[in-house]
Amino acid sequence: MFNRVAIIGLGLIGGSVGLALHKAKAAQQVVGYDIGKGVSNQARKVGAIDQPCATLADAVRGTELVVLATPVGAMRSLLQALSPLVTPGTVLTDVASTKVQVISWAEEYLPANVAFVGGHPMTGKELSGVEAADAALFQGGIYCLTPTARTKPAAIHKISTFVEALGAIVRFLEPAEHDGQVAGVSHLPFVASIALMNTVAEGTGWADAALLASGGFRDMTRLAAGNPEMYRDICLSNSTALTRWLNEYISTLSTLRDRIADHDKSLNETFTKARQLRLQWQSTHDTAK
Amino acid sequence: MFNRVAIIGLGLIGGSVGLALHKAKAAQQVVGYDIGKGVSNQARKVGAIDQPCATLADAVRGTELVVLATPVGAMRSLLQALSPLVTPGTVLTDVASTKVQVISWAEEYLPANVAFVGGHPMTGKELSGVEAADAALFQGGIYCLTPTARTKPAAIHKISTFVEALGAIVRFLEPAEHDGQVAGVSHLPFVASIALMNTVAEGTGWADAALLASGGFRDMTRLAAGNPEMYRDICLSNSTALTRWLNEYISTLSTLRDRIADHDKSLNETFTKARQLRLQWQSTHDTAK
Repeated sequence: MFNRVAIIGLGLIGGSVGLALHKAKAAQQVVGYDIGKGVSNQARKVGAIDQPCATLADAVRGTELVVLATPVGAMRSLLQALSPLVTPGTVLTDVASTKVQVISWAEEYLPANVAFVGGHPMTGKELSGVEAADAALFQGGIYCLTPTARTKPAAIHKISTFVEALGAIVRFLEPAEHDGQVAGVSHLPFVASIALMNTVAEGTGWADAALLASGGFRDMTRLAAGNPEMYRDICLSNSTALTRWLNEYISTLSTLRDRIADHDKSLNETFTKARQLRLQWQSTHDTAK
Repeated sequence: MFNRVAIIGLGLIGGSVGLALHKAKAAQQVVGYDIGKGVSNQARKVGAIDQPCATLADAVRGTELVVLATPVGAMRSLLQALSPLVTPGTVLTDVASTKVQVISWAEEYLPANVAFVGGHPMTGKELSGVEAADAALFQGGIYCLTPTARTKPAAIHKISTFVEALGAIVRFLEPAEHDGQVAGVSHLPFVASIALMNTVAEGTGWADAALLASGGFRDMTRLAAGNPEMYRDICLSNSTALTRWLNEYISTLSTLRDRIADHDKSLNETFTKARQLRLQWQSTHDTAK
């Protein structure tokens, strides 16, 4: 059992971490801090934390485990602010969508006598905010951890214990490997969705075409309605891997365009391959969850 | 009320047309023909048609209204086969996804004393086959009709009456205008989905990345599981409009890629525009249905 856990950032993820720790009776005390007015009181009301802290310093002082549950865009300044405040021996982890840059900031700003293990829970919800927090959010889901050669085994052990207390399944990855994979399965899809929405709605006849759009269009543009600042910060923090995937995607699309323009009758073979890959993914994914 | 209606092709759409005509008591007799063994008997069992016909000739002889409910890929040979069989005065319509090419075939193959009005119901279902047919499939949905300068007003009136009997809302469009609009809101999305599936699953680390893929990936690749032959036939029959949209999409993606590679901090403005367009479409779409 953890002695004292601090959650910094009490949104959907931070709140759910608190609820899950309570449900698992995994911590003697969970404290929380959020820059939003009234958020930490709300987090106490819903049972995510035991005690709200007025300052970041109060939250992390003498704390065994600190969970940074803010979006990637806030991570650099948060790590800078934590630098003079953290107590020697504390282990920190984060939940941000990209890992290489966050880890480089942690190594740059945090003192050598605290440990940092990058983390990324692969479960989410449409909703946001502590009101949507859910003790079962991580249950049975994959939770990536990205220790580096510099990470001490005791710190890795502590964070693995934390993830297991949440009910999630630990998956160890190199930070760059993690960022490359999520760029393909998570960041490329939202950029593709945004690009589709803007392309079609800025084309000729959109006012009329909008009336003809139905289920397929709805699915393919749903991600375009996501949080623009969060998307921007993810793109900027994973620029290299995402640019590489975008090049691949543009190349695949260009080949398809040429074949469609050439009336290539074997297009169905490429479409069949996509169909098989999708059905295969679907079946293993349904089994995994 | 129609005297005799023939439905050629008794899948989801053809079967639903039959059920809706019966429900509206809009035809004295609905007959049907399907090349699939046992399909027309099944259509009679579910109440979509009154009488199965053994041949195409039997179905269309002396028939007031003929509904061609086959995929676009079957349309050319069907129109060729109908050419010597149709009775003078018959009005034909179709339900295929693209209109310019189908209409040019109809004008090429059908005798001058029969009329053809292109149609395209904008409602669908995940399921296929006459077992999934639904009398309410078209209810309140948009149904495009694409008469040309050569179409006689009486034929347009007859097909409008037919669409209204199905419970759908008629929307008149030029054939090329229709094809351009559906290429953007319907055909580009499925090509984008297929390209995404193939790009990501053929990239490095897919076996591992597949485990990290979740809801966003699921939405963006759902269309990739659709019927490959139907997709191929749509692409080939709407090649010009679709190629133009693919060029626009690739151009939008390339600009985003460059801005991501350049760490452009104003990316969120473009993402905000996509978000607003999506929410706006969603709200009008929900109201329209």
